[in-house]
Amino acid sequence: MSKRKVKIVEVGPRDGLQSEEISLSIPTRFEMISRLSDCGISNIEVGSFVSEKWVPQMKGTLQLVQKLIHSQGLGKISRKAQFSTLVPNMRGLEKALESGIQEIAFFTGASESFTKRNINCSVQESLKRAKDIQKAIYGHKIKTRGYVSTAFYCPYEGRMTPSRGIGVTRKLLDLGCYEISIGDTIGAATPNEVKRFLEKLFKYVDPQQIAMHFHDTRGTAIANVVASLDLGVRVFDSSVGGLGGCPYAPGASGNVSTEEVVYCLEGMGFRTGVDLKKLIEINQWLEKKMKRPMRSPVALAGLPRL
Amino acid sequence: MSKRKVKIVEVGPRDGLQSEEISLSIPTRFEMISRLSDCGISNIEVGSFVSEKWVPQMKGTLQLVQKLIHSQGLGKISRKAQFSTLVPNMRGLEKALESGIQEIAFFTGASESFTKRNINCSVQESLKRAKDIQKAIYGHKIKTRGYVSTAFYCPYEGRMTPSRGIGVTRKLLDLGCYEISIGDTIGAATPNEVKRFLEKLFKYVDPQQIAMHFHDTRGTAIANVVASLDLGVRVFDSSVGGLGGCPYAPGASGNVSTEEVVYCLEGMGFRTGVDLKKLIEINQWLEKKMKRPMRSPVALAGLPRL
Repeated sequence: MSKRKVKIVEVGPRDGLQSEEISLSIPTRFEMISRLSDCGISNIEVGSFVSEKWVPQMKGTLQLVQKLIHSQGLGKISRKAQFSTLVPNMRGLEKALESGIQEIAFFTGASESFTKRNINCSVQESLKRAKDIQKAIYGHKIKTRGYVSTAFYCPYEGRMTPSRGIGVTRKLLDLGCYEISIGDTIGAATPNEVKRFLEKLFKYVDPQQIAMHFHDTRGTAIANVVASLDLGVRVFDSSVGGLGGCPYAPGASGNVSTEEVVYCLEGMGFRTGVDLKKLIEINQWLEKKMKRPMRSPVALAGLPRL
Repeated sequence: MSKRKVKIVEVGPRDGLQSEEISLSIPTRFEMISRLSDCGISNIEVGSFVSEKWVPQMKGTLQLVQKLIHSQGLGKISRKAQFSTLVPNMRGLEKALESGIQEIAFFTGASESFTKRNINCSVQESLKRAKDIQKAIYGHKIKTRGYVSTAFYCPYEGRMTPSRGIGVTRKLLDLGCYEISIGDTIGAATPNEVKRFLEKLFKYVDPQQIAMHFHDTRGTAIANVVASLDLGVRVFDSSVGGLGGCPYAPGASGNVSTEEVVYCLEGMGFRTGVDLKKLIEINQWLEKKMKRPMRSPVALAGLPRL
């Protein structure tokens, strides 16, 4: 990847939608993902193979993925689209294998308390699950991506020492993940903390293996993206319209919006390959589907005259 | 000023309120400013001596300033509070002198088209007005501050070359301004553009004479604050709750919110002297007064557990 090229991983259809009050139907999610592909986003996390009872927003992920894969190269969906799904456990993996998905993601975290409450096991146990999944996909052409949540702050434990997240990142890479997404899950980190973390991490790990996953809970996400860029990170997770959380709920905490990430990076001379005008149209379409204003100042204000 | 100390110039009561649909009464503005002073903000732009016919939101600025000055050191208003008002012309200056204000601000811009439409004169003429005002206050103990708007983008002319804003900044300093506030008026700049501008500017001007004034129209304001910090800027204009513009209007463009600036700077180890908890209380109080949600994710989410 060239130094001025940035990969956007659109996580709206999974990380975004799973925390929204309104559940979108399978055809609507299909249209959303088609449009995201059409605006030039190659990497899209399209769903999660979790229990539909616990996460109804992700209902029908199997059917959705099958439809998406059959549509690659047809209509709005690019032949180059790289879809992924979250896989929490072996039961989820069975569905993933059935779906034909090319990439799966594991979820764990730096914080014991958060991991326990979120996926109901210790960090150590989650790494064991990841290992089992890696073994089970041996021979299948499936890439694996790891999430390290709460790398900077935990809602229960507070500020995290960088060594915690760095240790988990290295273990996931050792297990065979091609990329690790480091999350500021509660959106509390500031640029100096991000730099300090990455400087330590890059003593052990190649920056090309790292994605950053910021939430804009306290307005620092774009500044954190820029800080990460300075240290060589070229992959960012984001969510169209800042999907996730609720803008009116206490503790609102959507992903950083893809519109802002693309606007800022392109303005800085990086190439994302994303057509921002088309992306803003998706934002406006989503407002109707989600029945609430999206979180994206760029979409609200539009592009400036150049 | 120590290298880790940052001066916040709160512009909500002027730059913020003047673009709001709802006008606040003089007692409410007095309470707002008292509370801002009480939470540790020393520099507050409290109003504007413009025609009340054109800017009804600034009605009663004379009375407000007199009341504020008489209250310094009493109740919530710090003895050290430094109040300022915008003064557009000689008529405004008469009122400023009558009010007893210690600091006034001029407004001009890098863009001819914007300056013409905004203050109805050329940039050259605006500098002539500034010169006349400077002459008229000779002998009075009044500090003057200059605003250079549209330094990066103009809504009519598009992207501005840095030399335009730099030229105007240097002229205002020559006229005797102690500080120049450089504005990204339509909130379109990205961090690289800010750095390029400041690197050129600081060939001629001491960073200590410069404040940055960002609008968060496209989500880049905090990243731009951080970029400016990197180049030695230690003064930032901001507005409690991101006052200004309207969150639902097309082209919404409030000032960067003071809450986000303070949160990010304190997180980075800078000292602003501002009590963020008290500031968030002002945000919540203002929501009731403005009858709309304020623009501040920090205020919405609250502070993280440390």
